[in-house]
Amino acid sequence: MEINRVKESGIFVIFGVTGDLAKRKLIPALYRLKSKRLLPENYFVVGVGRRVLTESGFDRMLEESRNSFIGRVNRRAWSEFKKQVSYYSINFKSVKSFRKLANYMERTGRESKCGGNRVFYLAMPPDVFGPVARNMKKAGLLKGKGWKRVVFEKPFGFDLESARGVNRQVSSVFSERQVYRIDHYLAKEFVQNILFFRFANPMFEQIWNNNFIDNVQITIAEQDGIGSRGRYYEKAGAVRDMVQNHALQILSFVAMEAPKSAKSADTCPEKVRVLKSIRKVLPSEVVTGQYGSGKVNGKNVVAYRKESGVAPGSLTETYAAIRFYVDNPRWEGVPFYVRTGKRLAKSYAEVNIMIKDVVCTVFCDERMEHPNIITVRIQPDEGISIKFNVKSHESVYPINPVIMDFRHKAVFGMNAPEAYETLIAGVMQGDKALFTDWEETEQSWKVIEPVLKSMDKMRKKFPNYRAGSFGPEEADKLLEGKKWVMPQGVGE
Amino acid sequence: MEINRVKESGIFVIFGVTGDLAKRKLIPALYRLKSKRLLPENYFVVGVGRRVLTESGFDRMLEESRNSFIGRVNRRAWSEFKKQVSYYSINFKSVKSFRKLANYMERTGRESKCGGNRVFYLAMPPDVFGPVARNMKKAGLLKGKGWKRVVFEKPFGFDLESARGVNRQVSSVFSERQVYRIDHYLAKEFVQNILFFRFANPMFEQIWNNNFIDNVQITIAEQDGIGSRGRYYEKAGAVRDMVQNHALQILSFVAMEAPKSAKSADTCPEKVRVLKSIRKVLPSEVVTGQYGSGKVNGKNVVAYRKESGVAPGSLTETYAAIRFYVDNPRWEGVPFYVRTGKRLAKSYAEVNIMIKDVVCTVFCDERMEHPNIITVRIQPDEGISIKFNVKSHESVYPINPVIMDFRHKAVFGMNAPEAYETLIAGVMQGDKALFTDWEETEQSWKVIEPVLKSMDKMRKKFPNYRAGSFGPEEADKLLEGKKWVMPQGVGE
Repeated sequence: MEINRVKESGIFVIFGVTGDLAKRKLIPALYRLKSKRLLPENYFVVGVGRRVLTESGFDRMLEESRNSFIGRVNRRAWSEFKKQVSYYSINFKSVKSFRKLANYMERTGRESKCGGNRVFYLAMPPDVFGPVARNMKKAGLLKGKGWKRVVFEKPFGFDLESARGVNRQVSSVFSERQVYRIDHYLAKEFVQNILFFRFANPMFEQIWNNNFIDNVQITIAEQDGIGSRGRYYEKAGAVRDMVQNHALQILSFVAMEAPKSAKSADTCPEKVRVLKSIRKVLPSEVVTGQYGSGKVNGKNVVAYRKESGVAPGSLTETYAAIRFYVDNPRWEGVPFYVRTGKRLAKSYAEVNIMIKDVVCTVFCDERMEHPNIITVRIQPDEGISIKFNVKSHESVYPINPVIMDFRHKAVFGMNAPEAYETLIAGVMQGDKALFTDWEETEQSWKVIEPVLKSMDKMRKKFPNYRAGSFGPEEADKLLEGKKWVMPQGVGE
Repeated sequence: MEINRVKESGIFVIFGVTGDLAKRKLIPALYRLKSKRLLPENYFVVGVGRRVLTESGFDRMLEESRNSFIGRVNRRAWSEFKKQVSYYSINFKSVKSFRKLANYMERTGRESKCGGNRVFYLAMPPDVFGPVARNMKKAGLLKGKGWKRVVFEKPFGFDLESARGVNRQVSSVFSERQVYRIDHYLAKEFVQNILFFRFANPMFEQIWNNNFIDNVQITIAEQDGIGSRGRYYEKAGAVRDMVQNHALQILSFVAMEAPKSAKSADTCPEKVRVLKSIRKVLPSEVVTGQYGSGKVNGKNVVAYRKESGVAPGSLTETYAAIRFYVDNPRWEGVPFYVRTGKRLAKSYAEVNIMIKDVVCTVFCDERMEHPNIITVRIQPDEGISIKFNVKSHESVYPINPVIMDFRHKAVFGMNAPEAYETLIAGVMQGDKALFTDWEETEQSWKVIEPVLKSMDKMRKKFPNYRAGSFGPEEADKLLEGKKWVMPQGVGE
């Protein structure tokens, strides 16, 4: 997405700045916005954390972020950026501590000429969203000139009930207008492009229904394990971490009816309609898994139960495959298969639209064996391809599956902004296009609720897949004779 | 197409061996078949011509063919090939002369152990097909052991009546089983692939009709002028030289109903059905042109009327654009625009399937401006692509047309055999898959008859297009507001 230059000054506050997300995503994104001259001159960043850190200790943290997650920087831009970043330590449970922060912010805003506009980014677990919000209010952090906006990282709750609880607490402090719920998949170029692909192209718009589509497969696969996020992940698991938000986000874009425009005011209600149409998932439609030890990218890796912060007998799922049905005329009879997992053979996210084979006259066996597939590659190597069959002069076998490909980077260059750059600039500008509203969040938890309940009752023999594989074998059975599409370049 | 090794020995006789076609296509193809070890050890080639040539004179001709049209050869293979090629001069009007040839052939067959199988390749104008066939019979060339097959180069006749006349004469000498009519476009990988693309892919089979297709554009463009073929071309013109055969061949593949198999026994009748369904072309549906001087590929070239063998006031068309309608339920209301010409800006042949835009909700103006197009590139750079719209993060304009591409050579390598290799091997093996039968030939002349008639009555202000352009402006009007698709890489 093209990012417009931010015009209004302000202070960007990161609660939980010593955590993983700030280091990996937020600091790099803020630096890049700065170095691309997309921020006004007076834009200050205040990192807030529990830990007591010296100036040099915080500087070490910034340098770590730079070395591991930014790569080469313009030295001048980097040192200028750092001049406008500071650290402040507080006790998140103490209103008094928040009051001191309020004073510090007021002073910083005045001295750095950033004015009163504030973005509060809560890079923290959902169970503290409510208390922190309350303390912010009590301490007067939300008072004064300028707008105050608050960003909540996923997950927004741990199930339907807790999400509602969090929302009650949050909405007692903020108006919905001030609240920005992040699902960074929404800001991915090729999640957005699903919409454009479908509705800017008569050829594809017309075949996007159960007359032409047999089934839809959504895969979000990661080679990574859980890293240092063991304590969080033990409570979350794959369904909460990936399916409830990212996967359902993608599913909504694939399945939605034509919106009046591509603007979120028009697409959000359409996504909610899709979520409301999803049939209650049955226990037989859910497969879960947890990785054992294995080899990923040539390196030996430990089993999930051996990761730090994980219980030795943990029953948390690191893999999930779920079958959804969207009960409306367009999608009647079309299963949406969703799968996601950690420590898989390859890191990629893509959607595979499997074309139906209705009436066949010629080449019927070959067509069965090599179905037509439209693939939207969300990451890496963003693009769209169609797998189809041609004859080859080389082979005795007359039909050969080949790929017709569009690679985004080959055409538009490599400089697509990271999702978090787009999102942060969006909050700064009050643009909610790439954020989810409460109704969408609530609906997605409603969809996931029966999945969580059936998982509770499942007998789990974990670990049940090898690190570096494509997940547990049981996931294949979910497709009832059909096959998961392998990423391009793998197998078949 | 994969070529199977030819098993039976024989003699390949080229009538008209001193002409353009033998030098350009037949000698190179025979050499390549030989050097790829696709011919049996004993396979002799006899070139027959009017001219009296010494052995070294004929050798010079072969070397010329090698230098200009084969390129690098394996020296041993080339010298072995030449050992099995000889020249024989005859008077084509004299039965006695043919008798001597018969004796020579009988002797050659015996001495070179090639046996009695014969392919007679008539690389000659159609008005001598009949007389030559008669003389062959009278002289006993068709007698003796082994099969005798005869190949007729295009054009088979100059109009419907003369084609029927030629066929009467030919069929009084040969049975239809012995006759091979060449349309070398039939042997092109990506003419055949139209069939596979359509019927091996449910996705494309299902949209291949007037619900989804707005119009079809077939372009065969050449940068070449008429070279040394002025005398032939003056009588032929673009419609006879390209439309009656190649363009209608392509149109038939695009338009045919599903055949029972890809075999010619099943596809030929389907092509005939298409040709029979073509609505009588009206004078207003024909645009012709003749090139003036200009620049092609940076070189100045003369006008058609200045070419050798061409009358200074010639009214022969070197360009034609025609609108066809196929009157059947699948194609009702879908115009097929065909255009071909010499001395155009680019040499290429392709089919553009223009997708209809029926109901539009979002991005409607953009969709109108950038229609979806399926392009089958027949030559050069054989392949299939789809032009469609995506969003770009770079541009302010949300919709950007891009290409999803499949390039045959990138996948299957560069070693596709030339059409003439495939065709010659086909005759040697008695495989008629890539030849047209009489019914198809007759029907295509029937389709062209009204075009020829309306051309006779046209007022022609020639030349009416510049060499190096994309043809006369009048051709644009034929499309009634739609636009000819430009080849990829050429501005819109």
